[in-house]
Amino acid sequence: MPMSVALYPGTFDPVTEGHLDLMRRGLKLFDRLLVAVAESRVKAPLFTLEERVEMVRQVTRSMENVEVHRFVGLVVDFAREKRVTAILRGLRAVSDFEFEFQMALMNRRLCEDVETVFLMPSARYTYLNASIVREVARVGGDVSGLVPPEVNARMVEKFRTGSGR
Amino acid sequence: MPMSVALYPGTFDPVTEGHLDLMRRGLKLFDRLLVAVAESRVKAPLFTLEERVEMVRQVTRSMENVEVHRFVGLVVDFAREKRVTAILRGLRAVSDFEFEFQMALMNRRLCEDVETVFLMPSARYTYLNASIVREVARVGGDVSGLVPPEVNARMVEKFRTGSGR
Amino acid sequence: MPMSVALYPGTFDPVTEGHLDLMRRGLKLFDRLLVAVAESRVKAPLFTLEERVEMVRQVTRSMENVEVHRFVGLVVDFAREKRVTAILRGLRAVSDFEFEFQMALMNRRLCEDVETVFLMPSARYTYLNASIVREVARVGGDVSGLVPPEVNARMVEKFRTGSGR
Amino acid sequence: MPMSVALYPGTFDPVTEGHLDLMRRGLKLFDRLLVAVAESRVKAPLFTLEERVEMVRQVTRSMENVEVHRFVGLVVDFAREKRVTAILRGLRAVSDFEFEFQMALMNRRLCEDVETVFLMPSARYTYLNASIVREVARVGGDVSGLVPPEVNARMVEKFRTGSGR
Amino acid sequence: MPMSVALYPGTFDPVTEGHLDLMRRGLKLFDRLLVAVAESRVKAPLFTLEERVEMVRQVTRSMENVEVHRFVGLVVDFAREKRVTAILRGLRAVSDFEFEFQMALMNRRLCEDVETVFLMPSARYTYLNASIVREVARVGGDVSGLVPPEVNARMVEKFRTGSGR
Amino acid sequence: MPMSVALYPGTFDPVTEGHLDLMRRGLKLFDRLLVAVAESRVKAPLFTLEERVEMVRQVTRSMENVEVHRFVGLVVDFAREKRVTAILRGLRAVSDFEFEFQMALMNRRLCEDVETVFLMPSARYTYLNASIVREVARVGGDVSGLVPPEVNARMVEKFRTGSGR
Repeated sequence: MPMSVALYPGTFDPVTEGHLDLMRRGLKLFDRLLVAVAESRVKAPLFTLEERVEMVRQVTRSMENVEVHRFVGLVVDFAREKRVTAILRGLRAVSDFEFEFQMALMNRRLCEDVETVFLMPSARYTYLNASIVREVARVGGDVSGLVPPEVNARMVEKFRTGSGR
Repeated sequence: MPMSVALYPGTFDPVTEGHLDLMRRGLKLFDRLLVAVAESRVKAPLFTLEERVEMVRQVTRSMENVEVHRFVGLVVDFAREKRVTAILRGLRAVSDFEFEFQMALMNRRLCEDVETVFLMPSARYTYLNASIVREVARVGGDVSGLVPPEVNARMVEKFRTGSGR
Repeated sequence: MPMSVALYPGTFDPVTEGHLDLMRRGLKLFDRLLVAVAESRVKAPLFTLEERVEMVRQVTRSMENVEVHRFVGLVVDFAREKRVTAILRGLRAVSDFEFEFQMALMNRRLCEDVETVFLMPSARYTYLNASIVREVARVGGDVSGLVPPEVNARMVEKFRTGSGR
Repeated sequence: MPMSVALYPGTFDPVTEGHLDLMRRGLKLFDRLLVAVAESRVKAPLFTLEERVEMVRQVTRSMENVEVHRFVGLVVDFAREKRVTAILRGLRAVSDFEFEFQMALMNRRLCEDVETVFLMPSARYTYLNASIVREVARVGGDVSGLVPPEVNARMVEKFRTGSGR
Repeated sequence: MPMSVALYPGTFDPVTEGHLDLMRRGLKLFDRLLVAVAESRVKAPLFTLEERVEMVRQVTRSMENVEVHRFVGLVVDFAREKRVTAILRGLRAVSDFEFEFQMALMNRRLCEDVETVFLMPSARYTYLNASIVREVARVGGDVSGLVPPEVNARMVEKFRTGSGR
Repeated sequence: MPMSVALYPGTFDPVTEGHLDLMRRGLKLFDRLLVAVAESRVKAPLFTLEERVEMVRQVTRSMENVEVHRFVGLVVDFAREKRVTAILRGLRAVSDFEFEFQMALMNRRLCEDVETVFLMPSARYTYLNASIVREVARVGGDVSGLVPPEVNARMVEKFRTGSGR
């Protein structure tokens, strides 16, 4: 059997415990996982692309078979270039579903070969996404337990120095 | 029995008849209502935080047992400080539901003690939210009946003088 | 302050840990809780109305300020008769939301005075409803932890003797 | 019988094959179609209002009974001015539905006479909206087949010269 | 211009004020309306097909340009036979939307020519469907105002004599 | 690398082209696919369990690495017994999503090891499910193209002889 490889794309601004949970689930299904950190669609992400790549690398250091990539352009082009078996995405809520469905159908149109595979994160991360983490941290809320310790430290620093919005 | 107090947080940009309907329903269930006017998550709200607080005060003048507060930071910190029994929120549509559910779960995680209570506004306010009111008023539509007269006057003024976007 | 009383109606076929979680949350908001066990809308419930009332009584024995009632007819008539402050309902998913919204609007039309109050059960009961519990138990799945021990024992008995469908 | 006229409002940033599909369906039901190109609600649309009007004109040239208008202000005011029978809108997904429902109810409130009529585009355009087209084109993806050739050429030009974001 | 004809299919068990509201809206858009009363998909409808046809006839007597038909088989076959311009359906909620979307796509596949047109009933009928009306009436609730007087009388009679479930 | 095996459970009453599309997608991700035909949750399925197993076998004959099983009991027990890597499910619509999410969370609770993997069928099967196929066929509609020819023949026979409801 050839190696099966999944591509897990996202902005990871910042990477959360929900993302890590999904990576662990992905590693049960695929031999290797490429995490592709994308440019942000919003004008002013909390962390730069470089910082985000660095953080994902830090928190996945101990996970075997995970590679972290900086990524610009179309997901399907990157998927083709890396010869991945599938694109991996998490689903938590109905609103996720509609957006993800639309993206997956568009990606299928752009590249018929690459399938999108959806997994469910642990139920305890249902309420968790990067944007709510940023919002809570911004007003001084405690997000430890929602993000890995390294990320938590960076967020505290960011908002303390006022470099976060 | 001790007094029961509910906290009703929001941006109220501007306060609408739908908000007032919800406050009246809340007062049937709780002895006292604290309306907490929050900073806006968007960069350029139509009204400043001060204007919004002022307007909510104006339109709730005649309602007994309502207090209006300016509020910065985490909702649950404010809820704890004020020793409220519950956070009050309105639900109109499915999209409301998902966002509110997520916020309520996050708030429960940040503070296990404070319950979020959801009420349904009157069916005639199903289509009403502050953002659609701003949009209609901006292009010259009549929003009287959707917002209290004092708010309507302010919006007309705002868009006439061009200080609204 | 007068006593505040909430009515929690349902079929409870059977009562689950999710229902108990919601009752506990309700008791933080209201002085007293009336649990109203209703006739089933489906032709053949797993447990008879009497069995269901009995089970809810058993599992709420240790909860103060909870009364369990057998209930036939309109929820709002019962609510009026008992002079309750509010009807209590749980919300877990979008599909819940639409049905509950519709019921609450209908009830408001039938009786303007009684407000419906929605609470969120613990996130760990998101996937839990009585119908999925029946289905899992029917094919021999273990539902302990999802229903109270007394209910679990009854379900095992029911399906062992073949009196459950 | 008097002529029946439908108004099809939108930002069309840019006009897609999904829009054209909907126009063709609208023309089976109404004698005449007024396409009303609106100012964008976002600050920086990809194409200016003038460019968008021009493109819609270009791609509907061969369709009889279609008129393209530049449009500022309230949809219902324009609808009344043009004495249209109905406002035409497409529905693809649940999220469309909620927003469209809200807009239609607001429009009905502003002008009781004008009905909003919803049609479904072809299933092969389910995943297609102007925003996903912009996003794919921006990172160099091929959107031919999703937008008419004239629009495709303009997008390629726009992003090549760097005048698109 | 040729006459435009819309087909409004349904089970109408029983016909409600929401159905009548939709018919009135349909008549603003189409010259003629064929109401097609279908066999019920459930085994035991409250009213027989004949009773349902009779009731729809009764309550639409005063509406010009409405014809009521008994209908068995495929909607699109009936639509083709009657040479209708469109099938008319109402949308109230997200769950309606998904089912209606699916039916409309299936009907389009079975007959490419017939378009399905969706209208929104009045906001005050958002919570209203035939099944909730039956359920409320069955337990003795007052449904006058939700159904026409003739239908109300029949329901009261039905449940009084015990011939309704 | 060990063989990866996915379990695709369902009632398949009857198996449709949408199911086959999903199987083909599954085979791109997994080395082997076990199709598990389950007892029906409704009292009177159109086809018996034996007929359904037989039909799935017939239409997957030419697909390598597919095995068809008759299956009674809990999905996770069967999954454990067969040492599968994952449970495979298709997602088409929001209503699917909620039900599937709930089932997957329940299955995860019953057996932490087995992951549920969701795939999207081709967009042209969005409107397709077994229940709508049965309904259309029952009233004489043409479902060829929606189900494999062998299944179509059986359905025609079933409804011709009146043995289908």
